[in-house]
Amino acid sequence: MLIRPARADDRSAIWSVIGPTIAAGETNAIDRNATEAEGLAYWLGGDNEVFVAEEGGTILGTYYLRPNQGGGGRHVCNGGYMTSMEARGRGVARAMCEHSLNLARAKGYRAIQFNFVVSTNERAVKLWQSLGFDIVGRLPGAFAHPACGYVDALVMFRTL
Amino acid sequence: MLIRPARADDRSAIWSVIGPTIAAGETNAIDRNATEAEGLAYWLGGDNEVFVAEEGGTILGTYYLRPNQGGGGRHVCNGGYMTSMEARGRGVARAMCEHSLNLARAKGYRAIQFNFVVSTNERAVKLWQSLGFDIVGRLPGAFAHPACGYVDALVMFRTL
Repeated sequence: MLIRPARADDRSAIWSVIGPTIAAGETNAIDRNATEAEGLAYWLGGDNEVFVAEEGGTILGTYYLRPNQGGGGRHVCNGGYMTSMEARGRGVARAMCEHSLNLARAKGYRAIQFNFVVSTNERAVKLWQSLGFDIVGRLPGAFAHPACGYVDALVMFRTL
Repeated sequence: MLIRPARADDRSAIWSVIGPTIAAGETNAIDRNATEAEGLAYWLGGDNEVFVAEEGGTILGTYYLRPNQGGGGRHVCNGGYMTSMEARGRGVARAMCEHSLNLARAKGYRAIQFNFVVSTNERAVKLWQSLGFDIVGRLPGAFAHPACGYVDALVMFRTL
């Protein structure tokens, strides 16, 4: 698996990864009805530095890294990760997160923060914990899950 | 004191409130060197609904309210509040926060979250606690304070 910076011609492959997860609405605070243009604007916009995980010419996952805050909060970064439905369970998210931790260190960040990990996404919570993230906050009922109703979201943090 | 929606002709008065606080760099994760245009873009931009606290024609403070997340996180709002240096200690922030809690309820939000309260800003922490906010998260060393070095930032939350 190769993890490399996203190129302009990866846009439709990136949407094929993130679109179904956004539409499911179970793990991310993005409008479930986001169009391709809106979803890609969210993923590729702002200060996001975007990467893809590729195997045999197929994009299996994508992640972004960005500063989590400005000014005096700029030494902490934020990352977002999505794996295609078809590539689940193959360590793609783990590989992307490890890649992002190395990138973040290389860029001089002192820590990485996830602002909104949906508590029912237990697989993700465990993965991030196994990669050294701590749960440093719990937001009560902050996520409206399409099946479970209002569930907590977690703030997770890792010093680099 | 009248708290009312900001108008286009309040821009320079709003900058006179937020500019010195931004430049001090002690309480907010905004670039200390932000220009007036950048500072106003931050304060007035995006989905922010902006209000001012006015007394005898003078703007004493300003606040914004916005959704804190999109999609399944859209029922929790976020607020930011600044009082002019000259009007400190007169209850302006308290009045603006109470106004924002009422506005948030009226708009149907279920909760309000502050993502980044600098822990050394004890006056603000106590004020928010007195208004019913709980500390639900602590971000270790997430803020580079110009005098104190790396200090924690707090996540505060209040159900509406």
